[in-house]
Amino acid sequence: MTNGESPSDAQPSTARRSRKLQTGRLEALSDGVFAIAVTLLVLDIKVPAHSGNLLDAIARSWPSYLAYVVSFSTIGAVWLGHNAITEYLDRADSGFVRLNLLVLLLVSFLPLPTRLLADYIDQAKPERVAATMYGLSLLLASTLLLVLWKYAVREQLVRPDAADEEIQLLTKRLTPGLVAYLVLIVAGLFVPVVAVAGYLAIAVYFIIPFKHRFIVSFHRTRQSRRQR
Amino acid sequence: MTNGESPSDAQPSTARRSRKLQTGRLEALSDGVFAIAVTLLVLDIKVPAHSGNLLDAIARSWPSYLAYVVSFSTIGAVWLGHNAITEYLDRADSGFVRLNLLVLLLVSFLPLPTRLLADYIDQAKPERVAATMYGLSLLLASTLLLVLWKYAVREQLVRPDAADEEIQLLTKRLTPGLVAYLVLIVAGLFVPVVAVAGYLAIAVYFIIPFKHRFIVSFHRTRQSRRQR
Amino acid sequence: MTNGESPSDAQPSTARRSRKLQTGRLEALSDGVFAIAVTLLVLDIKVPAHSGNLLDAIARSWPSYLAYVVSFSTIGAVWLGHNAITEYLDRADSGFVRLNLLVLLLVSFLPLPTRLLADYIDQAKPERVAATMYGLSLLLASTLLLVLWKYAVREQLVRPDAADEEIQLLTKRLTPGLVAYLVLIVAGLFVPVVAVAGYLAIAVYFIIPFKHRFIVSFHRTRQSRRQR
Amino acid sequence: MTNGESPSDAQPSTARRSRKLQTGRLEALSDGVFAIAVTLLVLDIKVPAHSGNLLDAIARSWPSYLAYVVSFSTIGAVWLGHNAITEYLDRADSGFVRLNLLVLLLVSFLPLPTRLLADYIDQAKPERVAATMYGLSLLLASTLLLVLWKYAVREQLVRPDAADEEIQLLTKRLTPGLVAYLVLIVAGLFVPVVAVAGYLAIAVYFIIPFKHRFIVSFHRTRQSRRQR
Repeated sequence: MTNGESPSDAQPSTARRSRKLQTGRLEALSDGVFAIAVTLLVLDIKVPAHSGNLLDAIARSWPSYLAYVVSFSTIGAVWLGHNAITEYLDRADSGFVRLNLLVLLLVSFLPLPTRLLADYIDQAKPERVAATMYGLSLLLASTLLLVLWKYAVREQLVRPDAADEEIQLLTKRLTPGLVAYLVLIVAGLFVPVVAVAGYLAIAVYFIIPFKHRFIVSFHRTRQSRRQR
Repeated sequence: MTNGESPSDAQPSTARRSRKLQTGRLEALSDGVFAIAVTLLVLDIKVPAHSGNLLDAIARSWPSYLAYVVSFSTIGAVWLGHNAITEYLDRADSGFVRLNLLVLLLVSFLPLPTRLLADYIDQAKPERVAATMYGLSLLLASTLLLVLWKYAVREQLVRPDAADEEIQLLTKRLTPGLVAYLVLIVAGLFVPVVAVAGYLAIAVYFIIPFKHRFIVSFHRTRQSRRQR
Repeated sequence: MTNGESPSDAQPSTARRSRKLQTGRLEALSDGVFAIAVTLLVLDIKVPAHSGNLLDAIARSWPSYLAYVVSFSTIGAVWLGHNAITEYLDRADSGFVRLNLLVLLLVSFLPLPTRLLADYIDQAKPERVAATMYGLSLLLASTLLLVLWKYAVREQLVRPDAADEEIQLLTKRLTPGLVAYLVLIVAGLFVPVVAVAGYLAIAVYFIIPFKHRFIVSFHRTRQSRRQR
Repeated sequence: MTNGESPSDAQPSTARRSRKLQTGRLEALSDGVFAIAVTLLVLDIKVPAHSGNLLDAIARSWPSYLAYVVSFSTIGAVWLGHNAITEYLDRADSGFVRLNLLVLLLVSFLPLPTRLLADYIDQAKPERVAATMYGLSLLLASTLLLVLWKYAVREQLVRPDAADEEIQLLTKRLTPGLVAYLVLIVAGLFVPVVAVAGYLAIAVYFIIPFKHRFIVSFHRTRQSRRQR
């Protein structure tokens, strides 16, 4: 493909582009699944049957709205993590593509426990089942995302120009949620509403950039490198 | 961005491409959410139950069709604004990606107030609740879009070659809708149908290119620059 | 952006890429809407309620399956036409983007008349209403596609290297369907099933490449040009 | 592809990019349909009506969960195959685009037999009808994928730098499933649950990279080529 003589200016761009070929459709499928999962959530908020006092009816269906916001935030946080992973990716291999399908299986499954939660959050016993199932789904999705990232690092699919600290930073960022999810699942067996509030807190923690820590610093590193 | 000395023809394209890496998936997720939100709207138009006079039954469900057109136009208008913003974007940062998730939360939520509006528009009291909730959703979505743009400008994420007038033009274009929405929400407390007609008018105003003002002039600017 | 000295090899690629920037998200939104509209159709095929003889129940719901195939084919045909248009597109302007939103409005609306048709095709009077509404939707979608193309040609958004015969060929290819739709809508007022069969025939005509006429010849033209 | 003499470094990238133009929207539409089909599946898992024992109710709806996993895996496997095909594709022609629409028709149809299977798997007679219809859909989807690939090979749409062994390897990989599906469809007439288990096994076989056979070796080939 190259003529081998002055490969210096042609090669990097070729490598880049061939990489894109490798991960382009994987990213497209993933973005599609994330986008649909996030948008389907709204279908689970029930429109109150023809009632005289609509405002009251909407207020009474607060669990639907809470579940909507928690699930949207969680899927958003998983997408942010997924995005950070593919940002570092140099190419995908056979195992990565398949692990990614597993992540998507979990993401596309999330609307179901969301619906369960919204339907049962105000009923003593089933509420615990729904909250536990919801927590397990979130835990599993987050765990798989970490596995996906560790797989990419181990199989050396990561861009060679990514610094070791950056790689460790992303690993660190993806890990703590798991412990929190475990604690909340147990707490949810006793006080389900607390668990749900916790799930929201985790998602918000990942989404709100309190100190602009991770991604900004990453950008700066790359920019400074480029300017040299 | 380029130092102009030796690898001059390779570098700009690299910079461009790395920018695309940064915003590529953000745009893909956004386009997915916009496309799904817009297409889900049709699910809210009810097919009349087996009735002898179908034409009459369809005619009677005019609120569904009106709500469909208003919401489609509004989401279309928000997409146009979002598109204009990313067009000017040089790169995304941590905060931008998260603000963008908030915009998408609102966009993917819009099918719900649309359904409420379609269901309740012909009933005296709930009609006001539905129209107000609808208006508030539109106002919030538009406000967030403006916040997203102001954030991009303030954090200098905008392309360095974008002229100041262009930036101010887009700010101006995104602002007036907010005032109009506020006025219509208040009007909707008294005459809901007028508010809905107003929401349609705003969307149409953004969509129909009365004087080919904004984007065309922008194209011309860029082309003339390129030809120099 | 270019240093102006040896612009020959840098410029075409820059122009190309800036064009992509202009139409990239327009294409992404369109592909999303087409993909969702086409996939939502399957939700309209009803699963027969728990019945002893499932095979019989499935056979009796043939109108759903017919409507599914007709609508899938039609949306597929519209997508092919849309694809051919953007293939020739050099850039988009303000009007084009908005006309395109109108095309998408029609495409995303098609699942509704499809559902109407599936529900009413075996009932004497409403059948005509459903078939007429279906035909009008198809006619409107096709007309808007032709308008979109004519607009692109008139506003000189078409790639400068597109030969005049190619442009006329695409115009010719997008036109005849309109007359056929008009004839079938009238026929559908008397014998609705004939109209539906006709709509399927039109879609198949556009989809099946009887003589590999259009696109292949287009490819050859471009390849021969490239080899020179 | 390149003549090696003078504009050598500009031309390959142009050729690449023009190829992308040809298959870009085809891939985007396909990824959209795959993503939506896979995500719609979750809508078919019913949330148990308000019941005292939620855990029990969820356990009793195991057929929905089984059907979900089988269909997700199968669509995932078809996507992997489709991905491998477009990876080898140099450009698309008229027939390929249309055959691809047929593949998408089958993929977007799969949620329906999935729903049938979930609804009827525990009922003696209809269970067979549902399992057979499910198997036929999977068989048809897989057959069309093979036809798509054979068409691409015959019409020389495959990248000229793809080795013959690679092409034969993909053909071999896409073929054996068909025989397995045929056997299982017949088996399903007698013991439907066995057939469903078999369909899951096939999908898992395609998804789990037992020996990292296919794609990894393909990557190595390309990399070694690049390094030369």
